[in-house]
Amino acid sequence: MEKLTIIKVGGKIVEEQTSLDKLLSDFTKIEGHKVLVHGGGRSATAIAAQLGIESKMVDGRRITDEEMLKVVTMVYGGLVNKQIVAGLQSLGVNALGLTGADLNYMRSEKRPIKDIDYGYVGDVKEVDASILADLIYKDVVPVLAPLTHDKTGNLLNTNADTIAGEAAKALSAFFDVTLVFCFEKNGVLRDENDDESVIRKLTPELFEEYVKSGIIQGGMIPKLENSFDALKAGVKEVIITRADKINRESGTLISIKDC
Amino acid sequence: MEKLTIIKVGGKIVEEQTSLDKLLSDFTKIEGHKVLVHGGGRSATAIAAQLGIESKMVDGRRITDEEMLKVVTMVYGGLVNKQIVAGLQSLGVNALGLTGADLNYMRSEKRPIKDIDYGYVGDVKEVDASILADLIYKDVVPVLAPLTHDKTGNLLNTNADTIAGEAAKALSAFFDVTLVFCFEKNGVLRDENDDESVIRKLTPELFEEYVKSGIIQGGMIPKLENSFDALKAGVKEVIITRADKINRESGTLISIKDC
Repeated sequence: MEKLTIIKVGGKIVEEQTSLDKLLSDFTKIEGHKVLVHGGGRSATAIAAQLGIESKMVDGRRITDEEMLKVVTMVYGGLVNKQIVAGLQSLGVNALGLTGADLNYMRSEKRPIKDIDYGYVGDVKEVDASILADLIYKDVVPVLAPLTHDKTGNLLNTNADTIAGEAAKALSAFFDVTLVFCFEKNGVLRDENDDESVIRKLTPELFEEYVKSGIIQGGMIPKLENSFDALKAGVKEVIITRADKINRESGTLISIKDC
Repeated sequence: MEKLTIIKVGGKIVEEQTSLDKLLSDFTKIEGHKVLVHGGGRSATAIAAQLGIESKMVDGRRITDEEMLKVVTMVYGGLVNKQIVAGLQSLGVNALGLTGADLNYMRSEKRPIKDIDYGYVGDVKEVDASILADLIYKDVVPVLAPLTHDKTGNLLNTNADTIAGEAAKALSAFFDVTLVFCFEKNGVLRDENDDESVIRKLTPELFEEYVKSGIIQGGMIPKLENSFDALKAGVKEVIITRADKINRESGTLISIKDC
């Protein structure tokens, strides 16, 4: 199978011109097939504030009422996505911006209300990877916005890590997929105050050990659980690294193999 | 050649839920290949106002400075486009939202400053119809937002009538194209106060005559000139009608043939 690299970058990177330019330039240099998945939460919060709409977050997740859905549709599907697409086109990369509604490539269901009503937030139910694969074989580079739809006319706000993970899993039927989560640190750290203390390789056993001992905690736990899930579902490798290091052999390699 | 219908609808239709629902339902019933081109000016003006940005128009064209470009990118590329795409998907139409930057299907150049600096407004220079045709042959329905790009990283605000006309001309190499411009009236009227006074068929000779006598005036003149241009460039027929009548034999048929 051919190799496919899926890069997920958070809002901070894509929302500042300097870091976005650097990212797009680095991304362009990745050889072979590739997909870019982006966030945009900071811009959404900023635009919402300008519109007099308050952003409510629970455990880092955005409560998405009707007004906030409009904001994220504008910001993720329009502003951030199209700026990335235009930027990549200027670098000779044949980018295509997609929400889950476009080509019906990712369908979700509105999250059921348990303790918290997240509003128009989608849990992914179905990914049509053959649609993405057809595009990728033609050297199109999908740029995936963190929005899905329920196939009954509603767009749903969907976590960008989830979009990246679900796309990676589904595309593993067609490609040898490397999934790269970019964030502000050099990788998963042994000591969060020492950016050089990168854990080079993380297996499920090590992960369990580090969680027990408190070395790995907080938001990193679900990120890593998702990574192991992706590997079990056929993704070849998952890497957690800094956005400005996606071209280097760096960061933390998440692995379900010991060797 | 197979038949292709390109429907262009203005902002008013797509920005109100009732008229949008009706449009999407009618659009779905059109047989054969189809493309939808939309505006969104009213929403852009409303969102801009909420953000404290004043909309400046000259001859019905929006002056697009950097801040306004962000607004139209959000509104046209995100809010309006994605709501249409999700709505069509709910009706079983395999819609794909596109700006000119997506797949690099429509390239433009920033309009040169003459008397007026329109800002980030694009004049269309190049349409890659084969990209659209490939999608259309696969029963994908492109939903075109009024945004293009200059291939050097800039998105440019572009008139939706122009997008529709340029796409129609370029796609005439692949399909028998019918281009339908929807607006609030039943068609081109003999008497603008009588919505029943539709001119059923308009040839270049009749057009010239009606312009001279003042029956056709104002914004309808460039619309019709564009229509005749499209016909000369290979578009089979151009129809001007009401958005809620796109499925009926009504409106004004623009023709360069007498018979």
